Amino acid sequence: MRPRVPTGIHGLDELIGGGFEKGKAYLVTGETGTGKTIFSLQFLLNGISKGEPGIYATMDQNPQHIIEDGASLGWNIEKYIDSEEFIFLDATPQLKSEESSFNYGSFFSELNTYTRILGGRRVVLDPIVPFAGRYKKYIDIRENVRKIIKTFESNSCTTLITTEIPPGSQSLSTLGVEELFVHGIIVLGLQEQANRFSRTLLVRKMRGTEIELSYQTFTIKPKEGIIITGPLIYE
Amino acid sequence: MRPRVPTGIHGLDELIGGGFEKGKAYLVTGETGTGKTIFSLQFLLNGISKGEPGIYATMDQNPQHIIEDGASLGWNIEKYIDSEEFIFLDATPQLKSEESSFNYGSFFSELNTYTRILGGRRVVLDPIVPFAGRYKKYIDIRENVRKIIKTFESNSCTTLITTEIPPGSQSLSTLGVEELFVHGIIVLGLQEQANRFSRTLLVRKMRGTEIELSYQTFTIKPKEGIIITGPLIYE
Amino acid sequence: MRPRVPTGIHGLDELIGGGFEKGKAYLVTGETGTGKTIFSLQFLLNGISKGEPGIYATMDQNPQHIIEDGASLGWNIEKYIDSEEFIFLDATPQLKSEESSFNYGSFFSELNTYTRILGGRRVVLDPIVPFAGRYKKYIDIRENVRKIIKTFESNSCTTLITTEIPPGSQSLSTLGVEELFVHGIIVLGLQEQANRFSRTLLVRKMRGTEIELSYQTFTIKPKEGIIITGPLIYE
Amino acid sequence: MRPRVPTGIHGLDELIGGGFEKGKAYLVTGETGTGKTIFSLQFLLNGISKGEPGIYATMDQNPQHIIEDGASLGWNIEKYIDSEEFIFLDATPQLKSEESSFNYGSFFSELNTYTRILGGRRVVLDPIVPFAGRYKKYIDIRENVRKIIKTFESNSCTTLITTEIPPGSQSLSTLGVEELFVHGIIVLGLQEQANRFSRTLLVRKMRGTEIELSYQTFTIKPKEGIIITGPLIYE
Amino acid sequence: MRPRVPTGIHGLDELIGGGFEKGKAYLVTGETGTGKTIFSLQFLLNGISKGEPGIYATMDQNPQHIIEDGASLGWNIEKYIDSEEFIFLDATPQLKSEESSFNYGSFFSELNTYTRILGGRRVVLDPIVPFAGRYKKYIDIRENVRKIIKTFESNSCTTLITTEIPPGSQSLSTLGVEELFVHGIIVLGLQEQANRFSRTLLVRKMRGTEIELSYQTFTIKPKEGIIITGPLIYE
Amino acid sequence: MRPRVPTGIHGLDELIGGGFEKGKAYLVTGETGTGKTIFSLQFLLNGISKGEPGIYATMDQNPQHIIEDGASLGWNIEKYIDSEEFIFLDATPQLKSEESSFNYGSFFSELNTYTRILGGRRVVLDPIVPFAGRYKKYIDIRENVRKIIKTFESNSCTTLITTEIPPGSQSLSTLGVEELFVHGIIVLGLQEQANRFSRTLLVRKMRGTEIELSYQTFTIKPKEGIIITGPLIYE
Repeated sequence: MRPRVPTGIHGLDELIGGGFEKGKAYLVTGETGTGKTIFSLQFLLNGISKGEPGIYATMDQNPQHIIEDGASLGWNIEKYIDSEEFIFLDATPQLKSEESSFNYGSFFSELNTYTRILGGRRVVLDPIVPFAGRYKKYIDIRENVRKIIKTFESNSCTTLITTEIPPGSQSLSTLGVEELFVHGIIVLGLQEQANRFSRTLLVRKMRGTEIELSYQTFTIKPKEGIIITGPLIYE
Repeated sequence: MRPRVPTGIHGLDELIGGGFEKGKAYLVTGETGTGKTIFSLQFLLNGISKGEPGIYATMDQNPQHIIEDGASLGWNIEKYIDSEEFIFLDATPQLKSEESSFNYGSFFSELNTYTRILGGRRVVLDPIVPFAGRYKKYIDIRENVRKIIKTFESNSCTTLITTEIPPGSQSLSTLGVEELFVHGIIVLGLQEQANRFSRTLLVRKMRGTEIELSYQTFTIKPKEGIIITGPLIYE
Repeated sequence: MRPRVPTGIHGLDELIGGGFEKGKAYLVTGETGTGKTIFSLQFLLNGISKGEPGIYATMDQNPQHIIEDGASLGWNIEKYIDSEEFIFLDATPQLKSEESSFNYGSFFSELNTYTRILGGRRVVLDPIVPFAGRYKKYIDIRENVRKIIKTFESNSCTTLITTEIPPGSQSLSTLGVEELFVHGIIVLGLQEQANRFSRTLLVRKMRGTEIELSYQTFTIKPKEGIIITGPLIYE
Repeated sequence: MRPRVPTGIHGLDELIGGGFEKGKAYLVTGETGTGKTIFSLQFLLNGISKGEPGIYATMDQNPQHIIEDGASLGWNIEKYIDSEEFIFLDATPQLKSEESSFNYGSFFSELNTYTRILGGRRVVLDPIVPFAGRYKKYIDIRENVRKIIKTFESNSCTTLITTEIPPGSQSLSTLGVEELFVHGIIVLGLQEQANRFSRTLLVRKMRGTEIELSYQTFTIKPKEGIIITGPLIYE
Repeated sequence: MRPRVPTGIHGLDELIGGGFEKGKAYLVTGETGTGKTIFSLQFLLNGISKGEPGIYATMDQNPQHIIEDGASLGWNIEKYIDSEEFIFLDATPQLKSEESSFNYGSFFSELNTYTRILGGRRVVLDPIVPFAGRYKKYIDIRENVRKIIKTFESNSCTTLITTEIPPGSQSLSTLGVEELFVHGIIVLGLQEQANRFSRTLLVRKMRGTEIELSYQTFTIKPKEGIIITGPLIYE
Repeated sequence: MRPRVPTGIHGLDELIGGGFEKGKAYLVTGETGTGKTIFSLQFLLNGISKGEPGIYATMDQNPQHIIEDGASLGWNIEKYIDSEEFIFLDATPQLKSEESSFNYGSFFSELNTYTRILGGRRVVLDPIVPFAGRYKKYIDIRENVRKIIKTFESNSCTTLITTEIPPGSQSLSTLGVEELFVHGIIVLGLQEQANRFSRTLLVRKMRGTEIELSYQTFTIKPKEGIIITGPLIYE
C-alpha cells in the first residue's frame, strides 16, 4: 500500500481513507467560483507546514493575485515563495503569442528540474485546460491529457489538477477527458435550496479506496480555509 | 490587502466586503435587458462623484444613446464628457470593415494613453465580445480574453467587463470563457413568478472575499439607478 | 429627452412611457404566426394617419400578400401606396440569384433616397434575417446586424425590425444577435393553458424607460388590429 | 378578398374562414405517420369532385403506393389518373444519380406546362425537403424554399406543401424554414394520454384569417378520410 | 388490395389489419437490446413454415451468432440454411477495408439473384445503417436510404428493415431518415416503472391500415418468440 | 448451446443464465468511477482461480496502478503476473507519438500470439476508446469497433470491453457504437436518492438469454470485490 498524503482540507482525509495516495494524480473540478484555487493552495500549504515544498504551475493565473487571495484568508504565501517552499511556475512565457502552439518541452523540463532539485513533492496544475486543449480531435485532446498526467506521475509527484465545469452542464470537466486518467475526482459545487446556496463537495471517484458517496457541505474560514461541515441535508 | 473601490450600486458594497478590489477585473453578466449598461454607468459616475475620472470603452454602443439612457435616469453624462471626467472610447474605427480583423494595437495604445494621462482609474468594457470573439478555436478565444483582462490589470485599472448570457442558456457568458479570468462575477437577471418578473442580482464569485450567496432583488430609480432591495423571496 | 412616436398598438404606449423613442430601432420578435407583420403594418399605418409616410422594406414578402393581409383586417394599404405614403421597398432584385451575395450598397442607397426625399420617418424591416444572415462566423453576423441598425439610426428613422424565434427555442431571435443592438424588444407569443392558446406580448427590454415586466394578452380585431387586453392570468 | 378553396377536410373549412385562399401556399406538417399524405390526397380529390384537376408532385413517393393507400380508404385515384384529373408528377428522373444535384429547370418547366394546359389549380408538393434541402448554409436553404413557393404562387396555384417534423422536436419542419413563406400552417400530431394516442390537428398560423387556436382531434374513416371531431380534451 | 403477409409475431397481425402488405417495406426500430433481431428471425421463420424461403442480409452480424441466438430460443436455423430456405447474405466482403466505400452493385446483384432464383419472398436487412450511412450530407443519406428501399420493393420483396434508436433519444432511427420511406413502423422499447422494465411494442405508422395506437407489452418465450400480451398499463 | 463462463461477480451469473457465453464479447459501461476496472479484474481473477490465464489489454492504464488498485482490495495481481497467468498487454508503445495513428497490426499480432501460446481464454480491453476512436466519420468509427470485436471473437476469446458514459448523458458509450456489436451489455451506475448514492448494475442486453430487467444494487468488499445485493428499491 502506498503511503497517504494528507489533503489539508479539514474533514476530507477521513472520507478518503487518510488522504491522497502518494505519487498519484487527482482532479478537483467545479463551476467557476466554487473554491478550486483555495483547495489547491490549502493542499500545497499543508505540505509546506510539514516541511515539504510544493509547486504551483499555471498558465492563466496572475501570481500576485494568487498571493492576495491567500492573504485575504490570512495565508502568507509570499513568505514561502521567498523561502523557496512555494514554487510558482508560470508557463505563460512558453506560449508563443501569434499561434496557439506551446513549448511543452521547455515547460516540462523546467518543471522536472524544480521537482528534482528542490524536492517538490506536491504539484498543482491550475487549470489543465490551456496545456491540454490545443487540439481539434477528441482523441488527440484525450491523448494529450493522458501524457501530461503520466509525466507528473512518472516524477512521483502527488498531483492536483483543476478543471472547470461549464455552468449548467452535467459534465465533470471542460474537455470531457480530464476525469479519465486521474486516480480520484473531487467535485466542488453550489446547490440552491429556496435561494440559499450551499457550498458542496462530492468525492466522485477514488480508486483503491472505499468512499462515502454523498454531498458534503463546507465553509471557507480565515486561516483554516475549506472546512467540511457534514453531509448536505435536503430541506 | 488592497483598497476597495465602491461599486456605486446601492446595497452591493455591503455584500462584497466593501466594494471591488482596486486594480482588478469584474464581470457583469446577464441576458439582454437586465441592466448591465446601467450598472456600468453607475460604477463610472460613482467614481466621478469622488473626483476620479473613468473610461467607457465600447465597440457596439452609440455614444449618443448612452448619454440619452443616462439622461432618462437623470444623469448628466454629457457634462462629464465635456469636463473630460467621463471618457467615451469608441473602438469602431479600429475595426476594418471588410474583414473581421481588428486593430488591437491601436485601440489599446489609445486606451493606455488615456489611462495614464487623464488618470482614469475605472474602466468599463461594454461588452467584451466584439473584442475577443474573433477566433474560431475555443483555446484561442480563451487566450484572447485572458490577454485583454491582463492588459487592463497591468494598468492598475479597476475594470468592469460586461457580457451577454444567451436567452434560456445556463451559461454565464457569450463566449464561455469571460468568467474564467475575472476576480468576481455579478449576474443580473429576470425571474418570473406567476407573470410577475423580478429583477435579480447574484454575486456568483468574488475571489478573496466572503460573500452572501443568494439572489437579491433590485429596482431602478431615477437619479439613484440600481438599488438592491433584499433577498428574493420565492412565493 | 427624445420625443416619443406612438406605436399604433392599442394599449402598448402606456406600457412603454408613451411610445418608441424617435430615431431609434426596436425589435418585434416571436415564433411564426404570432402577429409580427400585423404589428409592423399597424405601426406604419398609425404614422400615415398622422400624415407621416413610412417605408416597409423586405426581401421575403410578396407585396400583394401584404396588401391582402391588410385588407382582411379592413386596412386599405393599396390606397396609401398610390398616395406614396406607404412605400413598399422590395430588396429581392438586389439579391444575385446564383450566389448568396447581396448588393447592400444598392439597396441601402435606394432606402436612403426614399427616406430623404419622401420624408419617410418610420421604417419597417420585416424580417432582418435575409439581409444579415449571409455570414458564417458569429462575430461577422453580429457585426452585420449592428451596421444595418446603425444605418437606420443615422438616418433618424424610428425603425421596427422583425425576427423569428425558432419554434420551441428560448432564444429571442433567429441569428442570436438581433436583440443586442436595438433600443427595445417586444416579444409576441402563444401560450397554451389546457388547449386554449392566448396571444401574448411581453416588453422584454426598453432602454431608458421604466417598463411593466409581465405578459400581456391581446386580440386582433378588424380595423383596430392588435388590442392589448390586460395581463395574462395563469389558471 | 380572394375566393376561398375548400380543403376537403371535414370540419376544417369552418375553422379557417371557409377554406384556403386561392393561389396561396399552405404547409401541412407533422411527424411521420400523422396523416400528411391522406390530407394531401383529400385536398386534391375534393377539387376533382368539383371538376378541378390537380397535380401531385413528389420526388420520394411511389405512385403505385399512393394509389393503393388511397384504395385502402376507398378512393379510386387510378380512375382520375386515367381521366387526367389527378396528375402524378414524379421528379425522380430529374435527380442525377451520382451527385446530389437536381435539374430544377426541367422539373418546374414540366410543372408549369401541366399547370397551364390541363388547368391544374391545386398542387401538392409532398414533401418539399428533397427539392429544397440541397444546400449547406441556412441562408441558401431558406432562399431556395422561398423560390419554390414563389414559383407556385406566381402560377396562381393553391398549393399544399408537406414537411416532416423530426420525432421529439419542437420545430415545425425538417429544414426549419418551410414555415416562413407559407400563408398558413396546419400541424398534424399524435398526443398520448395514459397510453391512448389521439390524432390531433392544430391551425398554427393562417394569415388574414381569424382562427380558433386549439388542438382538434380527428379520425380517419373509409371514403371520408380525415374528419375533425372537436377540440382535444385533456383528461 | 394487396394480399397480406403474416408477421409471425403472436398478436401483431390483429393490430395491423392482418399482416404486412406484400411487396412493401417495414421498419422495426428500437434501442439496443429491445428484440429487433428476434423479431426479424421470427418473421423469416414464419415464412419458412409456410414453404416460403427468406433472405437475411446483413453487414454487421456474425452468422454463427444469429444461429446460436435462434438456438437459445429453440429455433433450428441451421437446418433451414442447409435446406436453402434461410439464406444468410453477408455483405461484409463487399466492404473495401481501407476506405469506407462499399460495392453496392455487387451486393445488390447478388441479392437480386437470390431473390429471383430461390424464390425468396421475405427479406430482412438487419441493420440498414452500414449500407446507408456512408454519406456526409443529410440529403445524400436520405436519398441513399430511399434507393435501397426502392430496390427491395421493385423486386416485390416484403422487406423488414431494422435500425437503432440512440439511447435516450426521441428519434425513430440512427440516421433520422429510415422512417420516411417505409410503409409501416414498429417501435420496440423498454419502459421502466419503479425499477420494473416492460418490453413494449408500438405500431407507430402503418400506411393504408387502421391501427390501434397504444403501447403493447410483450414477452419472449422459447419456441414461440415474441408474444404480445396486451396494452401497457401505467401504474 | 455454448458453454457458459462464470463472470466472477457475486450474484451476476444467476441473472444472466449462468455466465457469459464462451467466445463472445460483452460490454461493461458506466460513468467514471462506477467500478468498471474492478469488474474487469474480478472477471480475469475468477478465470485464474479456475486455472485459466487471462489478458488485460489497455492503452491508457498504468500497470502499476492496476496492481495497486487490486492490492487495495486484497488481490495479489503481481503474483499472477509473475506466474504468467495475468498477462498485462500495454499498447502504448504502438502509439506513434506525433500523429494520432496507431500500429494496430503490431498490437493485434502480439495479442494473437499471447492468446494462442499462453492459452489465454479471457480478454479484457479496458477501455476500447483509444483503439477505436481515431476516425472522424460515424460510419468509420462504427466499422472499426466492429473489426476489433470480431478479431477477439475469431480467436474464441470471451471478451470484456469497457467504455465510458459521458457524465449526464443517456448514451450507453463514449463513441455511440460500442454497444452495437457485443453480445451483452452491463451498465454500472450511481443513483442518488436524497443525498445517498447507490451503486447500481443493470443487465441491459444479453443475446440468447432471458434476463431480469431491473437495477441491482451492489457493494465492493475486500477480497470479494463486487457483490450484488438485490434489486434497487425506490424510496
